[in-house]
Amino acid sequence: MLCRSGSGVAAMKVYGDSNSGNCLKVKWVCDKLAVPYQWVEVDTSKGETRTPQFLAMNGAGQVPTVAFDDGRTLAQSNAIIRYLARDSALIPRDAFAAAKMDEWLFWEQYSHEPYIAVCRFQLVYLGKDASELDPEKVKRGYAALDRMERHLATSRFFAGDTASLADVSLLAYTRVAHEGSFDLDRYAAVRRWIGEAEAVLGLPKAR
Amino acid sequence: MLCRSGSGVAAMKVYGDSNSGNCLKVKWVCDKLAVPYQWVEVDTSKGETRTPQFLAMNGAGQVPTVAFDDGRTLAQSNAIIRYLARDSALIPRDAFAAAKMDEWLFWEQYSHEPYIAVCRFQLVYLGKDASELDPEKVKRGYAALDRMERHLATSRFFAGDTASLADVSLLAYTRVAHEGSFDLDRYAAVRRWIGEAEAVLGLPKAR
Repeated sequence: MLCRSGSGVAAMKVYGDSNSGNCLKVKWVCDKLAVPYQWVEVDTSKGETRTPQFLAMNGAGQVPTVAFDDGRTLAQSNAIIRYLARDSALIPRDAFAAAKMDEWLFWEQYSHEPYIAVCRFQLVYLGKDASELDPEKVKRGYAALDRMERHLATSRFFAGDTASLADVSLLAYTRVAHEGSFDLDRYAAVRRWIGEAEAVLGLPKAR
Repeated sequence: MLCRSGSGVAAMKVYGDSNSGNCLKVKWVCDKLAVPYQWVEVDTSKGETRTPQFLAMNGAGQVPTVAFDDGRTLAQSNAIIRYLARDSALIPRDAFAAAKMDEWLFWEQYSHEPYIAVCRFQLVYLGKDASELDPEKVKRGYAALDRMERHLATSRFFAGDTASLADVSLLAYTRVAHEGSFDLDRYAAVRRWIGEAEAVLGLPKAR
């Protein structure tokens, strides 16, 4: 399968775990922009990101990681989608609007994913009970949802009136936050936005 | 004081805490690129990022935050420096090289800062003893340094042969990692890189 690249045309493999929102961001952007790719399912629970072959692609030992036929590799979900979506409508052309998108991308990785995605992981994949979750993580997850609700009360999408990578990135774990014990029923604007963002990306409703 | 902006010329205030590496990233980039700014010292320990006025600028209640005279605001250290350094030599012109820089920027906020900066904060600003640090945070901080050492053994800077924002970002807390109990003497390549990156930015040696 073929993909646009910085130096012409190159085949691209996406190494990902289908249960990971970080990995799904890459799939969604490729599908939305009709970027061809080959998905390589990786089972992180079996140590498949710790093999010498995988660590040679991404020294951080994390998915998603993309690899081009010419040997180039790229990691970090938000860096990958920022590269694949360059020159597309998913990144605002105005430099300041793009910077506001970046603000949300970095916020997502620092103040959202470590709480909402981690709580979901512990419940869904480690089989923990909600009562076993770290209360501080739950509190910070709700703080992230509170901030999103305030922003979305007056803004259709995160970086303005049209969808951008900020929405792709934040959608990944917000749409399944209920699987991490978070009560989305409290968040009317977030629920409205989830539906709109899912429609933009052509996704079925997560709940 | 005046600063370039997306829409011409605007005055810029940088709200920051001089003890915060995240805030110093912004100062270093402004100084390096001769972007004029007014530094507004913010004491986070006194709740100064939780006032209604501050939260109106940055709903996340965090420094650094920059504000332009026309009312626009921008937060998240790596998003700020990415905006201020656009069109400068601190961001590679090649799209894939810029994406590799972004990979390190996101990795810094997810896999480096939460461990190395947080340990330093607890020792230097909360007055804890090294024995009170969360062993998991220390372990992950060393894992970050290990990865940097492996990369820098064969690469002069993080995104290639010339300094980029990846170096600015990673320098902020790495050069003071010893204040968070991390033994930098084990890391010859990291120490070599710290010196080179400090020289690029015109900084005095941190240790």
